[in-house]
Amino acid sequence: MKVGPRPAGREFFTARTVAEALAGFRPARRTAVGGVPLADALHRVPAGAVPATGPLPGFARSTVDGYAVRAADTYGASESLPSYLDLLGAVRMGEAPTVAVRPGGAVGMPTGGVLPEGADAVVMVENTAETMPGTIEVTRPVAPGSGIVRADEDVAAGAALVKGGRPLRAPDLGLLAAAGVTTVPVHARPRVVILSTGDEVVPPDTATLLPGQVRDATAPALAGLVRDAGGEPVIAGIVSDEPGALRARLQEVLPGADLVVVSAGSSVGARDETAGAVAALGDVWCHGLAIKPGKPTLLAECSGVPVVGLPGNPLSALVVFRLVGVPLVWRLAGCAAPPPEPSTRARLARDLPSAAGRLDVVQVALRDGEAEPIFGPSALLSVLTRADGYLVVPEPATGLDAGTEVEVTLYR
Amino acid sequence: MKVGPRPAGREFFTARTVAEALAGFRPARRTAVGGVPLADALHRVPAGAVPATGPLPGFARSTVDGYAVRAADTYGASESLPSYLDLLGAVRMGEAPTVAVRPGGAVGMPTGGVLPEGADAVVMVENTAETMPGTIEVTRPVAPGSGIVRADEDVAAGAALVKGGRPLRAPDLGLLAAAGVTTVPVHARPRVVILSTGDEVVPPDTATLLPGQVRDATAPALAGLVRDAGGEPVIAGIVSDEPGALRARLQEVLPGADLVVVSAGSSVGARDETAGAVAALGDVWCHGLAIKPGKPTLLAECSGVPVVGLPGNPLSALVVFRLVGVPLVWRLAGCAAPPPEPSTRARLARDLPSAAGRLDVVQVALRDGEAEPIFGPSALLSVLTRADGYLVVPEPATGLDAGTEVEVTLYR
Repeated sequence: MKVGPRPAGREFFTARTVAEALAGFRPARRTAVGGVPLADALHRVPAGAVPATGPLPGFARSTVDGYAVRAADTYGASESLPSYLDLLGAVRMGEAPTVAVRPGGAVGMPTGGVLPEGADAVVMVENTAETMPGTIEVTRPVAPGSGIVRADEDVAAGAALVKGGRPLRAPDLGLLAAAGVTTVPVHARPRVVILSTGDEVVPPDTATLLPGQVRDATAPALAGLVRDAGGEPVIAGIVSDEPGALRARLQEVLPGADLVVVSAGSSVGARDETAGAVAALGDVWCHGLAIKPGKPTLLAECSGVPVVGLPGNPLSALVVFRLVGVPLVWRLAGCAAPPPEPSTRARLARDLPSAAGRLDVVQVALRDGEAEPIFGPSALLSVLTRADGYLVVPEPATGLDAGTEVEVTLYR
Repeated sequence: MKVGPRPAGREFFTARTVAEALAGFRPARRTAVGGVPLADALHRVPAGAVPATGPLPGFARSTVDGYAVRAADTYGASESLPSYLDLLGAVRMGEAPTVAVRPGGAVGMPTGGVLPEGADAVVMVENTAETMPGTIEVTRPVAPGSGIVRADEDVAAGAALVKGGRPLRAPDLGLLAAAGVTTVPVHARPRVVILSTGDEVVPPDTATLLPGQVRDATAPALAGLVRDAGGEPVIAGIVSDEPGALRARLQEVLPGADLVVVSAGSSVGARDETAGAVAALGDVWCHGLAIKPGKPTLLAECSGVPVVGLPGNPLSALVVFRLVGVPLVWRLAGCAAPPPEPSTRARLARDLPSAAGRLDVVQVALRDGEAEPIFGPSALLSVLTRADGYLVVPEPATGLDAGTEVEVTLYR
């Protein structure tokens, strides 16, 4: 191995800020759209609005147990001077009414029943009494429309059941089901190919390590982040540091990928190899991010496929992928704004130094409303697993004082 | 159908607050524990701590590119008066060192390489120069331990890689992989059997509805919430309102369930049928929750299986299941505290009335930092799909004034 002084700035000749990367590195690629069954559609992203073919609920429905009436027949009714109405029958759940409401009449209604012809309101059973067979007393007036929902009050025919570009939530599945939509056109899960590099890296199922070997921690963790972002991770193995090996492997995986993530070797040589291989196959958008940890990050596009080159330390790689890679995965699936993350406010437990011009991502443990920074080299993955969340010291700041109220993004 | 006055309080003879339900209704049942591959372990709940069989990273490692040295040999070094050290060789990635560091010597180190015998620090390459072959200049002193991680600094042998009871996150998968743990003992996903009831309810794939029929919106939406909570939903069909039908179906599904959810018919009769069927098979813990929407909620335990009876309106059912059912699903899988939900603070756009003694769950749309309540009968599922989140008016409050700062739990 040759170790020697490097020309300053060689490695990070196209460094950017995280904000620039999020705003500027936006490959046009989107995954294909296809129908999936409702049961598999949770958090999938519809390509466009899905319209209702008819109105919902589809008929005027009672929202209470009571009596369908003409509202005008109840005007002036009170406990002391009830309106007396003829009981004409009752509506059964799930069936068409067999009787209409004529002036002076009432029809028994279950919640959810079909409003009979002639009725324009439903009196709650609590405001009635059936003191004589065939007659009910109404002790409170109702206005037209009271106790009912209109046939198109949930969704009008042709209106959107769900919007395009927003991941489907549980209630969306309900509304689609109500409208009879059991196959939903959504973007395919982005296939995120994860390549690990490094002669020292061996598969996680390696029982016994030789001296200097480490198991691949980054690929399984990245796969988890990809899943959280709605993507389909493809762990594509470990590439040796041999010159040309990564380039050859990239050429193999690019045609089947929506995004390629290279968890780079950690040494200078390995990083240079990654940058060289990617540059040979496409356009490097940036090499170097003003972020700590995570500076040696590379963003590129090769044959229309975005490629993210991550730092070799698992902690750095995961921090960067969370901030820069996860929004990419969502966007590939047609989602403009990733779902919100949980967060909380806390008081910083100690002073936090930071260099201006660099985004610092600091892992913290929370206790009693205090955020305690977890310091440690970015070679330690346990810094991340011990954290409850992270805070960000923005680019302009030169640090934060103990006691400062900070926003902590929580892991879940 | 018979509709008539009911004795006051009959239906909700054992009403509780939501806080009482969350604290008090805690069935002892937990799902079985079994090993799953790492790739399927995301968000699964380990039954107990998973210990490391050996230390991590397993050997003292360099965290920088540079030279392994004895720190004492660098004391006093500066740009003007460097320390001169003999270059004894270099460590290769993933291999054992072939040379030790003796006093006055240095060995080239890649980031992540194995620290050679005799060295106690690594000088960053930036603070060195190789001006003559075989000799390096060190221009800044290092302390012992600088530029390295100890063999057990990430995790000590026998220490916990992950804790029990907390769903696994992406970085946890990384740490497990690093330790060679590729099968993780986790709780089985709780099997949540979802029964829909109501003569008016038909399956979502029903192409044409007869008058008065509605498609089952609640079951697919509940299935989504169950998945979000790490459970395995089992949509077990629609039970007619016929007396005895629900009880018979409950007896069928209870043996294969960790939790049974009955989305009750919406009419009084259907609700009474649910309560009767459940009471006949087990112990009713509460019938009636002080919550709006969602009052007609039933919590019970039948043969050791928790049973949740939900209101008939999809909106009410989903609101209650989110608040009371989701923590149950997590707990069945051995998770004490469900993962945090995203939230934000916003100004209430208008006055919000509420009855004291009742928890009000209000759906809101967010715009420019304002939370606009979405009003509408709980028969309308679109109230929920249009919302960005919800706020809670706590039990003691009699309402909130416009302009109040409120905490909005965000949907994702």
